[in-house]
Amino acid sequence: MTRLEVIPVPGMPEIGRAADLAGLLLDAVAAGHEQLRDHDIVVVTQKVVSKAEGAMAAVDPDDPLSHKPLVERESVRVLRRRGDLVISETRHGFICANAGIDLSNVARGEAALLPDDPDRSARRLRDAIAGRAGVRVGVIVSDTFGRPWRRGVTDVAIGSAGLRPVIDLRGTHDAYGRELQVTEVAVVDEIAGAADLVMGKAAGVPVAIVRGVALDAFLAPDERAGVLDRIVRSPGEDLFR
Amino acid sequence: MTRLEVIPVPGMPEIGRAADLAGLLLDAVAAGHEQLRDHDIVVVTQKVVSKAEGAMAAVDPDDPLSHKPLVERESVRVLRRRGDLVISETRHGFICANAGIDLSNVARGEAALLPDDPDRSARRLRDAIAGRAGVRVGVIVSDTFGRPWRRGVTDVAIGSAGLRPVIDLRGTHDAYGRELQVTEVAVVDEIAGAADLVMGKAAGVPVAIVRGVALDAFLAPDERAGVLDRIVRSPGEDLFR
Repeated sequence: MTRLEVIPVPGMPEIGRAADLAGLLLDAVAAGHEQLRDHDIVVVTQKVVSKAEGAMAAVDPDDPLSHKPLVERESVRVLRRRGDLVISETRHGFICANAGIDLSNVARGEAALLPDDPDRSARRLRDAIAGRAGVRVGVIVSDTFGRPWRRGVTDVAIGSAGLRPVIDLRGTHDAYGRELQVTEVAVVDEIAGAADLVMGKAAGVPVAIVRGVALDAFLAPDERAGVLDRIVRSPGEDLFR
Repeated sequence: MTRLEVIPVPGMPEIGRAADLAGLLLDAVAAGHEQLRDHDIVVVTQKVVSKAEGAMAAVDPDDPLSHKPLVERESVRVLRRRGDLVISETRHGFICANAGIDLSNVARGEAALLPDDPDRSARRLRDAIAGRAGVRVGVIVSDTFGRPWRRGVTDVAIGSAGLRPVIDLRGTHDAYGRELQVTEVAVVDEIAGAADLVMGKAAGVPVAIVRGVALDAFLAPDERAGVLDRIVRSPGEDLFR
């Protein structure tokens, strides 16, 4: 059976607007004496994607609450407020704290917003990697979300390309021949969380390679699916909205 | 920087009541030509732990709803019902579907309940591994939970030993010297999800080794913490209960 490897990619430079993210990423991979292979999964944090896409906004560096109007602007619906904390739904359908707006690992006076379409961001990066390096990888754009009922945050996928966001096990059977009850596994979220284990919030490593994920997690070349259409629940099917 | 390895441990036999889980696990590891090392993390699914502890109940194999009275019995509070689906709180404080009762990968006519105290289960396994193999590992008991707002299930930790369930990053700084906003990372859940990527729901691999997790995830020998006290939110701090 295949083991999984999760490989940190340190050495990414500071990412500016319109940076060549694929080129910088491939340089950092090479500098670490590593090489991307077919069926590797490249996980990049939302932060570097937002920086490269210019999804940033100005904030007053001397006012710790100056990003709050941004949170309201980037929210389509507020679910909960407690003190300064806002749990809201973004226009993508993500439900998270502060509409995903983040002040850590960005320059003073700036805030990072979520990418406009994180699945498209992932597809572009995958296509650029295929064009430059000739390898067919999956790409996940990850972000750090809290969750109800359980303390602590975990990294989840907010965008993906080349991957089945959920693997549907309906029709497969367990070791006893019984049809499986649990049918859809959110593999992109498990992969994003695994990548976080080598990135570290403080270490500033925004890229990791996950190698050895089962081949049925990969889409065929002509298939297209992403986090927004496969992971984000519609309000109608959601029991907690 | 350290890479992470996630190693499946196939070859576990069927687990019966009062099975010597640590012994069977060490045998399976050895049969795979692998060896546990200090600071490895052993992830075992709830299913084998429940079987070894006899946390099982009889159900009518010809009635697909015969486990429903068990769900009511094992729930302290029901949050939502839709059709046959019940989302409830267990006496541990977990909020999950069907009170964690599971009919897959168990014998016909049986249902697996959650272990009585999954942190204690993890501690026992860790202590038995230390006694038999002389290695200091972390142990996670994992289970498969759904979540609000996002489709698909992921594996999370329901018990742990030897590990800091959440790593508190307060007081640490990002690459720009700014104090981190995101303060508590639920590493045990990220590790449980990573392990699921090599286990597979259908493959019947109930054990994985996760190697290379940062040393600050491990508890000192005299420290004790688990999922129930560190991950499960109290109702008072929970915005979604």
